[in-house]
Amino acid sequence: MKNIETLKVSEQLQRGQVFAVECPSREVLKHVTSRWGVLVLVALMAGTHRFSDLRRKIGGVSEKMLAQTLQCLEQDGFINRVSLPVVPPHVEYTLTPMGEEIGLKVESLADWIEVNLPRIMKVQQDANG
Amino acid sequence: MKNIETLKVSEQLQRGQVFAVECPSREVLKHVTSRWGVLVLVALMAGTHRFSDLRRKIGGVSEKMLAQTLQCLEQDGFINRVSLPVVPPHVEYTLTPMGEEIGLKVESLADWIEVNLPRIMKVQQDANG
Repeated sequence: MKNIETLKVSEQLQRGQVFAVECPSREVLKHVTSRWGVLVLVALMAGTHRFSDLRRKIGGVSEKMLAQTLQCLEQDGFINRVSLPVVPPHVEYTLTPMGEEIGLKVESLADWIEVNLPRIMKVQQDANG
Repeated sequence: MKNIETLKVSEQLQRGQVFAVECPSREVLKHVTSRWGVLVLVALMAGTHRFSDLRRKIGGVSEKMLAQTLQCLEQDGFINRVSLPVVPPHVEYTLTPMGEEIGLKVESLADWIEVNLPRIMKVQQDANG
């Protein structure tokens, strides 16, 4: 991304530019990095989940927010939603191949934060006194 | 992260757990993946910036939101803020070593979206008709 200026115009036109306010990549970035989007992607990296499983796994998410988050990620092509014809209704969510690619990036970021949390909290404590 | 269940308790306690609603890692994740947090980190991966340079680079950000975003990331230990004693005031922002580590993760995610935007947009178009 740092070298966008050195790309040929034809190359620039074939990729997004997150710094440009009107670029559609901004919208995708928003879905993927949303409060619940990150956690949904990381959860699904472990495999297919039912709606109720996801809700149980992701602490604090409401039914409405989870449904909205899944819908956005489905429309971007990151998640497959399969509704099984059984009673009671049974809906399963799985990452698409593209979802697995971006899921790896998001998981790597979340992992880094989890592993480095003690370092971060030490900086915060030192700053506060 | 997928293997959290297989970690020893002592190992679990030494890292964050983003799925737990009360874990401080959630707050850090929020700052880093916020609408402007992502773009600030990616911008600073290219080197030190003045406030006005950042504002110019990141399309659509307001002065207030940029200041808030920088403050959060500074408190988490990802950014150094240096105020030079000159007239007019001149403030510079640089990633800390920890900021460079997490910046790499965020940049990798943003890069993926930029490069794969054509694939994503094709899926969106196919879904809409």
